[in-house]
Formats: sequence, C-alpha cells, structure tokens
Amino acid sequence: MKAFMDKDFLLKTGTARKIYHEAAAGEPIFDYHCHLNPREIAEDSRFPNLASMWLGENRYGDHYKWRMMRANGVDEKLVTGDAEPWDKFLAWARTMPALIGNPLYHWTHLELRRYFDINEVLNGESARAIWDAANEKLRQDPEFSALGIFKKFKVYAVGTTDDPADSLEWHEKIRREGKTSAKVLPSFRPDRALNIEKPDFAPYIAALGKAAGRNIAALGDLLGVLKDRVSFFDSLGCRAADHGLEYLPFRTSAGDEGVWEREMESLFAGALAGKVPAAEQAESWKTFILTRLAAEYYDRGWAMQIHLSAVRSVNSRALGLLGPDTGFDAIHDHPVSAKLARLLDYLQSAGKLPKTIFYSLNPKDFYPLATIMGSFQGDLSPGDVFSGDTSPAARHAAPGAMQLGSAWWFLDHRDGMENQMRLLANVGLLSRFVGMLTDSRSFLSYPRHEYFRRILCNMLGDWAEEGEIPGDFELLGGMARDISFRNAQRYFEIP
Amino acid sequence: MKAFMDKDFLLKTGTARKIYHEAAAGEPIFDYHCHLNPREIAEDSRFPNLASMWLGENRYGDHYKWRMMRANGVDEKLVTGDAEPWDKFLAWARTMPALIGNPLYHWTHLELRRYFDINEVLNGESARAIWDAANEKLRQDPEFSALGIFKKFKVYAVGTTDDPADSLEWHEKIRREGKTSAKVLPSFRPDRALNIEKPDFAPYIAALGKAAGRNIAALGDLLGVLKDRVSFFDSLGCRAADHGLEYLPFRTSAGDEGVWEREMESLFAGALAGKVPAAEQAESWKTFILTRLAAEYYDRGWAMQIHLSAVRSVNSRALGLLGPDTGFDAIHDHPVSAKLARLLDYLQSAGKLPKTIFYSLNPKDFYPLATIMGSFQGDLSPGDVFSGDTSPAARHAAPGAMQLGSAWWFLDHRDGMENQMRLLANVGLLSRFVGMLTDSRSFLSYPRHEYFRRILCNMLGDWAEEGEIPGDFELLGGMARDISFRNAQRYFEIP
Amino acid sequence: MKAFMDKDFLLKTGTARKIYHEAAAGEPIFDYHCHLNPREIAEDSRFPNLASMWLGENRYGDHYKWRMMRANGVDEKLVTGDAEPWDKFLAWARTMPALIGNPLYHWTHLELRRYFDINEVLNGESARAIWDAANEKLRQDPEFSALGIFKKFKVYAVGTTDDPADSLEWHEKIRREGKTSAKVLPSFRPDRALNIEKPDFAPYIAALGKAAGRNIAALGDLLGVLKDRVSFFDSLGCRAADHGLEYLPFRTSAGDEGVWEREMESLFAGALAGKVPAAEQAESWKTFILTRLAAEYYDRGWAMQIHLSAVRSVNSRALGLLGPDTGFDAIHDHPVSAKLARLLDYLQSAGKLPKTIFYSLNPKDFYPLATIMGSFQGDLSPGDVFSGDTSPAARHAAPGAMQLGSAWWFLDHRDGMENQMRLLANVGLLSRFVGMLTDSRSFLSYPRHEYFRRILCNMLGDWAEEGEIPGDFELLGGMARDISFRNAQRYFEIP
Repeated sequence: MKAFMDKDFLLKTGTARKIYHEAAAGEPIFDYHCHLNPREIAEDSRFPNLASMWLGENRYGDHYKWRMMRANGVDEKLVTGDAEPWDKFLAWARTMPALIGNPLYHWTHLELRRYFDINEVLNGESARAIWDAANEKLRQDPEFSALGIFKKFKVYAVGTTDDPADSLEWHEKIRREGKTSAKVLPSFRPDRALNIEKPDFAPYIAALGKAAGRNIAALGDLLGVLKDRVSFFDSLGCRAADHGLEYLPFRTSAGDEGVWEREMESLFAGALAGKVPAAEQAESWKTFILTRLAAEYYDRGWAMQIHLSAVRSVNSRALGLLGPDTGFDAIHDHPVSAKLARLLDYLQSAGKLPKTIFYSLNPKDFYPLATIMGSFQGDLSPGDVFSGDTSPAARHAAPGAMQLGSAWWFLDHRDGMENQMRLLANVGLLSRFVGMLTDSRSFLSYPRHEYFRRILCNMLGDWAEEGEIPGDFELLGGMARDISFRNAQRYFEIP
Repeated sequence: MKAFMDKDFLLKTGTARKIYHEAAAGEPIFDYHCHLNPREIAEDSRFPNLASMWLGENRYGDHYKWRMMRANGVDEKLVTGDAEPWDKFLAWARTMPALIGNPLYHWTHLELRRYFDINEVLNGESARAIWDAANEKLRQDPEFSALGIFKKFKVYAVGTTDDPADSLEWHEKIRREGKTSAKVLPSFRPDRALNIEKPDFAPYIAALGKAAGRNIAALGDLLGVLKDRVSFFDSLGCRAADHGLEYLPFRTSAGDEGVWEREMESLFAGALAGKVPAAEQAESWKTFILTRLAAEYYDRGWAMQIHLSAVRSVNSRALGLLGPDTGFDAIHDHPVSAKLARLLDYLQSAGKLPKTIFYSLNPKDFYPLATIMGSFQGDLSPGDVFSGDTSPAARHAAPGAMQLGSAWWFLDHRDGMENQMRLLANVGLLSRFVGMLTDSRSFLSYPRHEYFRRILCNMLGDWAEEGEIPGDFELLGGMARDISFRNAQRYFEIP
Repeated sequence: MKAFMDKDFLLKTGTARKIYHEAAAGEPIFDYHCHLNPREIAEDSRFPNLASMWLGENRYGDHYKWRMMRANGVDEKLVTGDAEPWDKFLAWARTMPALIGNPLYHWTHLELRRYFDINEVLNGESARAIWDAANEKLRQDPEFSALGIFKKFKVYAVGTTDDPADSLEWHEKIRREGKTSAKVLPSFRPDRALNIEKPDFAPYIAALGKAAGRNIAALGDLLGVLKDRVSFFDSLGCRAADHGLEYLPFRTSAGDEGVWEREMESLFAGALAGKVPAAEQAESWKTFILTRLAAEYYDRGWAMQIHLSAVRSVNSRALGLLGPDTGFDAIHDHPVSAKLARLLDYLQSAGKLPKTIFYSLNPKDFYPLATIMGSFQGDLSPGDVFSGDTSPAARHAAPGAMQLGSAWWFLDHRDGMENQMRLLANVGLLSRFVGMLTDSRSFLSYPRHEYFRRILCNMLGDWAEEGEIPGDFELLGGMARDISFRNAQRYFEIP
C-alpha cells in the first residue's frame, strides 16, 4: 500500500513520476482565471488564522467547504454564523473523515502539506495541534503574506475577475509599486451589462457610466462606454474577458443588423425606465451585447471565456439569509449545440471570432462544445502570432485558438479532470490545451495546479507504459510542460 | 487468472478484501425499497421450482430476464407463454452464455451460489443437473421459504411498495403474528392519485375513498383522505413514500396559493366527471398533490423517494398482449434542473421539505440532481435527530438528508453503481450514502446487496492502496459498514 | 514499459492476447457501412502518393486529419489548398506529435505498419524517409490497388453508401467482371428524398425520376419510384438502408392515415412548386417517407441504419469556400427518447419494424437508444432466419435484431468504443453485437477493425483475468469471432 499522499501521489507508473517530477512540477503557475481580491494583493495581506483562510468570515469564504459541512449536518452557526474561529475550524476538522472520496479531502491535505509543512491527517483529534502550528506560521512566517505565497508557488501571472465599472485602482497600485514579479492581470467580466432582465440593471448602467465619466442615456452611449472600458482594461494588461451565462444565448432580429440595433435601442431605453423585458427580448439583448463585445476582444487579441450551465442561488431561504455565492448554486442542463453553432458562426462570418474558451458545468456539454469549437479552429486565412504576425486574424488562427475549458467547480476533481482531458484528446489536441486555473477566491488554492499536473502526468505515463504512445521523454515532458504552463503563456500572450 | 466469481469476486486489492470480508459482509440488510408481495411474507410462501422463482408465471416474473431472452431470439412462448417450467428454464440457461458482460450473468450465478450452494456455470449443458438440485432444495429445505430467506440473509428490514388504497391487511398480519424478526414496512406510493390524465383516475379515487371509508366528492375530501392514509401507513411503520414520475413536474398557478387550490378543485371535479385535463393542467395537478403530500411526509419525518425518467410501456403490441411491467420500459431524457430547483425551493420556502431521495434512470441527470439537492442540505435551523431532537426540522437537517439514490434498474450494474458512487463522492458525501436497495419483486435478489458492497469496498480499497486516502481500517471499515447498512438504519429511523 | 504499438498493442493481459491473436485477428472483415467510391473499386484504382491517400486532393480527403491540422494552426493552403503533395504530407507529419492521445495517432501508425510495413514514428524528422518508402510501394506493389488491399485485409464484404438516384453502374460492373471475391454491396441512402426543406429538393426529385425512367408529378409517383429503387438496389445485393438525421423525426397527422397521406400529397405538390415547408411540416414529411421506406426494408429483410445527432456545416465561411464534408460538422444534443419510442412503436404496430441499427454521435443518447430498442427485440411471433424461416417477421425476431450501433465518427476511439460496448453489455447482449464498420471514404481504414477487435478482446480478457467471467476460451474466442465478423455476416444475411 502506498503511503497516504506521498511524493508520488496520483502517479501510478515510473514514467508518470518522471514526467511529473522532472518536467511538470517545476513549471511556474499561470492562474489565468481566479477571483482573488486585487486589494489583498496590493496590500500584501496576511490572514489571522486557518479558519479565516479556509472558511471565511463572510460571503468570501469557501462555499465548497460550507456545502460539505451542511451535508454533514453541521449547524449553520459553525458554517457561516458567528461562532468562534476555533469552533468553526473544529467543525471542519470533524467533517474531514466524512469527505473520503471528495476532492476537498485532497485539497485540504495538500494545502496543509505545501503551505504549512504539516503532514498529519486532519480530523477532530488532530485539529488542535494543526490549528496551533498553522496559526503560528500565519502570524509570523513571511511566506504567508499574499506576495509571499506568490513567490513560494512560482506564480507567474494571475487573471483576476473584474467588473467593467471597477476602477482597477488596486491593479494600478500593484503595477505602480512593483512589489511582486507575478503579473496581476485584470479580466473583463461584464455580466451585469448583459443581464437586462435583472432589477439592478438600470442602477448598474448608471454606475458604469460614472466609472467611465460619461452619462449613458442611449444604446450608443453604452456601446461607447463598454469599448472605452475594454481599452482601459487592456491598458492595464487585461488579456481575457469572462462571461457567466446560465444558458448560451443566441437570438438576433427578424430584420437585418440595422433593425436589430433599433430594436435594442428601444429595449435599452425601456429597461432604463424600469421596464422588464420578456425572456426572448432579454436573450436578444444578451446576444447583441455579447457579439459587440466579442468583436472588441477579437480586435485586441483577447481570449473570450464563457462559463456555462450554472444555475445560481436555487435556495431562496439561503439567498435571503446569506446572499449569493454562499454554496447554493448547482448544475443546469440546457441544450447547447444549436445556439453555440450559430453564435460562433455569426462571429466567424463577421470576421470577429476571438480566441475562445468554453467551460461548462455539465459534462454532457463537452462533446458538443469540443466538436463545435473544433469546427472553428483556424480561420482559413491563417498565420501564427508566434511567428511575428500579430494581426487579430493570425491570433485567432494560432494553434488551439478554440479551447474546451478545464473541468470547473463541481467537476474539478480527479474524475472530472481526467474526463475533460481524455475527451479533449479524443476529439482534439490535448497538447494545445491551456490547462488549469483555480477559479478561486483563496490564496491557498495553488496546490490544485499540482493536483491537475499529477493527473495529467499520470495519464501520459500510463499511455507510455502501455505502449500506446512512444516512451519519448522529450516529447512527453515537453507536452506536460506546455499544458502545465507554456500553452497558457502563449495563448494569453504574456511572454 | 482469478477463478470465476470466487470469494474475492470484484475485490482487486488486499485492502478491498479486508474491508469487505471483515466489515461490510457481516452487516444486516436494510432493503428499504422493494416490490415484495407482503402476502407472500405473511404466508411464508415457498416456490415450486426455479423457473417459477426466476421467470415467473405471470406479470410478476423477472422482466430483466425476459428482455434478454427476447434479445436473444427466444420464442415468447418460452418467455411469458404457456411453455412448461423446465422448457422455460432451459431457454434461460441457453441464453446465459450470451450474457457475458451483463449483470444478469453475475446475479444468476450469485443466486445459485448463495441460495443453493451450486457453483457450476449455468448453460444449456449444466441446466438439467442444476434444475434438479435447486428444485430439491426449494421443495424441502426450510431455508427456502420467504421467512427462511430473510433469516439466512440477515434481512433487518424491507420496505414494500403499497398503494394508499391498500388495506395493508398483510402488513397487519405480519406484525400481529411476529413470525419474523425482519421489519416489514409499508411504503406509500400514491402515483395513481397524481395521474389525473389516466383513464382509470376516477375509478381509482372511488377505490381510495372506499379504502378510507369516506366518499371523495371534492378536492378537500381527497386531501383529507390522503392525509388519513399517510397516518394509517405511519401507524404500521411506514418511513418512506415513493413516487414514480416520467418527468419532474413543477407548475403552480399564475395566482396565489388560494387561486391554485380553486383551480385544482375545479380540475378535480372535471376529472371525476371524466374530463381529460390538458398536459399543463395535469402537470399543475401533479405538482399540487406532490407538494401537499411532501408536507405530510415532512411532518412525520418520512423520506420522500422520487424515481425519475422511466418511459413506460413503449411497445403497444406488447402492452396489449402482456400488460404493463413485462419488459417494455426504457430510459427517458427529459431535462431536470430547472423544475427540480423550483420544486425543492417551493417546499423549502414553505418549511416543508422532507428528507428526499432522487433516483434517475438516466445518468445524465446525476450531476444536476446531486448538486441541486446539495443546495438544500441543512436547513439553516439545524439540529440532529440522533442527538435526541426529533422535530421535523431536525430530521430534515440530519447528515445526508438529501440523497442521490443508488443506481437503479437499467443502471444497476458494476459500471452504473461505480459511476453513481464516484459522482456522489466527487460532489457530496459518499460516507453518508444510504446505499443499496433491490427494487425487486423477488426473494432471490439479496445477493445484489453483496454485489453492491463488493463494488463499494473495491473502490475504497483501491483508493487506499494507491495512497489517495489513509489506509486506516477503522475509518474505511466504518464507512463501509455505514453505507452497507447503518446509514439506512439511521436515515429511516428504524433503530 | 511496453514498446510503442507492438504486437500486443492495447492487449493488457495474457487472456486478451490469446483471444485476439488466436480468435479475433484471423476473421475476415465485413465493413457493412462505408463511403468507398464504387468506381475506384471497379477500376481497381491505385493512388499516386501518401498525401493523396491520406489528405486527398478535393473534398473526398480525410476531414478527420484536416480538422486536427487546423487546430494545430496549419495554413489552409497545406490542408485543402493547392500546396504540393509533399508539403501537405510534411505539414501532417509535423502535426503528428501534437496528436498524442488522439485516435489519429494510432490510426496513422497502424496504417504505416499494416499497409507499408513501416514501423518508424512519424514526425517532421522521419517524414522524408517515410514518404519515399511508402510512395515506392504505392507505385509498384500490386498489394496497393483497391482490390489488392481487399485481398490483403481479407475483406469479405463492404457496404457502400448510394443515393436512390444512382445508376449503380459501377456496382453492376463489379459484379459482372468478378475480379474480386469481396462482395461489394450498395446501401440505400435516401436522405435527399426526406429533406423537403432543402433548396435542392425539387431538382433532386426530378433526377430521381430520371434515374427510374418515370416522371414524378405527385406523391404516388414518388412512392412508386422509391419502391422500385429499393427493388433495384435489392437486385444488386443491397442488404441495408441508411439515413442521416440531424434529429429523429416523429410527427404524424391529427387525422388518420388517409388524412396524413392527403396532407403529404399537398405538401409534396407545394415543394415541387418551390414552396418551403414549415419546420413541423418538414418533420411530418420526413416521418411519412421514413415509415413508408421502413416498410419496404422490412419486407426485404434489410437492416435500417439511422445515424443521429450530427450538426452539419456549422461554419458558413468554410462551407462557402470548401463545400460540405470538409471538417466542419459537429455533435448535436437534441433529446431522443420520446420520438424514438413513438417511431418504433408506430412501425411495430403496423407490423413493419425492420431490423434496425441506431448510431448516435452523442453518447448521452446511448442509454435511451439501447433501452428503447431493447423494448422492441423479438416481435412476439418469432422464429429464426437461421433455422430456415425467411419470413420478414422471423428476420426481425432474429437474435439482436435491434442494434445499438458502434461508436461512430467523433466517438470512434478507445474510450468511445469501450463505452459503447460496456453500455451495450450492461443493458443488452454484447455477444449479439454486429460490431465495427469504418464509415470511411478510404481504402486505408481497415486497421480500424483491428483497433476495435483489440479493444474488444482486451475487455473480455480483463473480465476473465479478474474472475468476472469464466476463463473459457471456447466461449470467449467464439464471442470475439462473432462480434468481429460472424454476427454481421448473419445479420446482413450474406453467407
């Protein structure tokens, strides 16, 4: 029996071990989509204790853990309530043995090992000693500030997630002060500008105008402001947008583009006046804004990320008591093929299809996504951004421009990641995959890159051991390095 | 090469073997959802021969086997027809070699081994000797009556499936006579009260009224009778309801609850008068009755089971010739997320969400089911039924209150069971899983619990051998015991 | 570490090796669905070079490879453009290392080994030597003509794919001249007669009439001509029809069959006059023609193949530049259960359900397909075509009449094939499976049968080694032979 989570954790063959330890493990981390708070980076924050870091003190805590505590019957007071940090930590520690088979069991122990050098198994009995030892380091060890963690984990770059109305003041401060070699890049997440059906749409538009220093009274104003904000984000190093969509919208007008634009002008005017659009109108709006923005992304060589198929805040009582993002989201099951094909074709026909990454929370979507996107690789007027041609067309036609995103959120576990990678390999080019991202609010999540790399290397090693691929370490080690880091570096053009 | 189905069948590692043989194997069986006929229990029935037990003599035979015989080109006379028992058995025996890879190949041989101590491989050549040996035991051996089988397989409890109009006379007789230590619990299956669109709805309502000793002339009568029947079932030990739903209904009224109730009063009056409701009206009715009943279940701490996504009797010719439940059902592919989220939220908002188990016949539903249910674990005002608080809220908030049901029917095989357990582990708490049930009409199905436990233990053993979880036998053996039996015992509150 | 793709490629156990080498490997090939050009067979064509064979010179090239080249950023000039053959070949060779994990990596190397006896790994460095050696054989070696390849690979029969308007002149020539022992069978693919909504429908109907020597002015004419063409195809050895359907249609009339027929007469007259039908009308038309044709198939004991869930030509720019079938198709995600159940039931009720094979490009459909088809096995008035009863009913009731088709196109890889076979085994009879087909336009695709057989034998071997099935070589070898060849031979009735 192998020891629990030893140095060869998840690596079943000698070849897997060699690829991981000699190639993948040493690569830096490009965490191109996360929810780190840029202020905490700018201020080089420290964390008072392990409960604060792991369970949070407010809605920015770890809703993955909260869900599991609730499923284990833990009193909400100890989850998001006002219990003492130690009591919350103890409740988590006591939940750990119930997590056998869950990725949190691995993540938690990886974090104890890689950050704190603590190798004990966490449970109710070991909780006190681990609490004391970890908190000691959190208080005193210079490695445990935000920037100390970046350094320790060789974080090359992170992509935060930012609203177009955000001033990006903390990003500016980080760049100005230059205290870290990690590149802290904003990402453009304009969901609120698409959600015309939501009650806070009109106030949001006002706030967006304020951020841009312009009054938004009509559709033309909005499009101008969005374009300005894209440029502003670009000036601060942004290389990617991100959209969270419950379903993939695609609804244009019965008329031509001019008719559509006039319909949207009128819809927008109504929405600013408080009118709630019908579902079809809202879909048309989302399609309109998404496609206008995609053209901007294309022109700047940004990657467009789309996160699909989450159904949010399904539990009204919890939403009322705790607000959004507190562990009450789940997986939707809308169909995706028909509208995805039309959306990509619309952009391609307009010559404005950016590099694109689609993530879906429902693995039933992976085959449609991978094969439909695969029909838009290349653009029939290619080039290669790495050969010096930096035109938008060349950037779009770069290898692997269309990406099936890494297994995400509820799928972010051994089976989910292996499924995503095998499927991608079967119908596309695994070797061009931009790889892992944490999608996390926490500075403690970097071992998930290690987790991903071990799973990747194990798969490659297994294939080689079985004679399914050549046992060529140069080839396989290079592929592991590419997927671990270098593909992302090229894809997001951050040399 | 391992011998065929030896004592370490399905157990690939030493750790798996230890967990199975030393922990899981010895646990009693809680078969909390089955279709045993309570009369056969009350009468301690015996079975004339192996053909009768395996292939049946009427629609209560094993439609799993019938399907495979048909797929193998066997004449229907030898399947459900009037052929001699021996000829039917021989036809089954000759089908066996064609079943390599099918769970029936394992189940059949497990049944021969565990009930009859017959270790031969069944096929056309061995059929005669096996027939003679097994029938000899069926005739004479005291272990082969219904209650003898309960004793031999350590059956702790069974949950039968009973219509609200059922008198439960056989359940009363079983309790009164006390001939078995196995607890025989009725389960409340009110499908016919929900199926307002079916031609036998009005006659059924009349029968239900008769069973309750009340005339049902209006909606209020029906709700009263259903509540009385719930109480009556409860008095005879019922701990669970069960609903079979082709699709998950959720349609309320455009108006408030009062408006909805008046709409349903009118719909019900029409249905009693023979009017067939439109599809949307039928969905509204199903939603109405289901939610009223769920509130009753909640108040009594019952578990609500919902079986989704079967499409029934797709072959009209077969339905006409043989009736329902004769092997002509299949897997549906309705979407599930949107309505499931709304149904659970409706009940949760009303403070009436019972403990719930969702089974789906389509594995595409597992991720939506597991994550949407996971958003309703705990109720934000928790407690623990096992710490003495027996309020409905505490029962609902008990660990693992919301359960992704075990792989069912067409999914009840190695791959299906492992998929369901891995998925549950990945997004929830496998350790809180209430585990296996047979869903069977047969007294010969108990080895399926063994089958399930072997698959479970193999998975745990594999993880431990690979260092993915601690090789801690106390922890893993306890988890195996919990999932094999103890979780169900706690969940259904049958100490 | 096993050598790359040695003689035991994909065969992990001794039992797997024995079953493959001693049973499966020697069986002939029945490639019952492919897209070979019958003219190339009749003319015993040769191929000028490896680029022509692998990458094509027009739309009949290998769009699998084209997609991967595009995904790897290769200039379209080198994909489908006018670049020199050597340059195209080199671009492919340089793409190879990026294909680690993709089935094309295996297929390409299998083709080099089995056709050309070239065992090197193909990449940019080895490209020149491989190009020279392979082209030498293509020019001179008699094994490299179409018929030479048939002989070398023991091709017993191929089923080409032919339009009802096709004269089948090349098929006639092949039969007449008798230069090959391989049976070259046409298959009836009437998609264009179903696609009433397409702009080329009316011209197609005219062409069909011309082929049949009759004017088609009304629905009755069309039905007569289709029946005649079925008979004509039958006279040239056709044993199967094939339909490519984006979604499974099932929409009849609100009236009876007579009403429906009159509606279709009127719809057809309109379509001939250039009227585009509404979507529902088109679905009704497809249902009407499909069911009329199915009755013809039934009467002749043909197998009806249906290929579902491809979404075609999603990239308009590519369609305009390159035409259809050039690598811009993908996977759809329509639901399937409800309409499939109704279609099969309609045909069964009419006593006209032929032997049927359903392929879906979306694996989410496999459980619904397998279980719904499983509800139509047997016909409750059975017999066995192999026992001499050749009535349509007996043919339909033969073992395994309803088949879940082999993993197809985007699913035609290790994981996809294993998934399809395990699923079939779990809910049906793997032993009755008609097995592999290439669906290919190329004479170089026969090693895919080897690939399939290795995966099959590995699965059987693994089960036997683990004691999950008896280690009975007669049984398992026979099963492997059946699935490799003999089941197809029986199913298509080509003794």
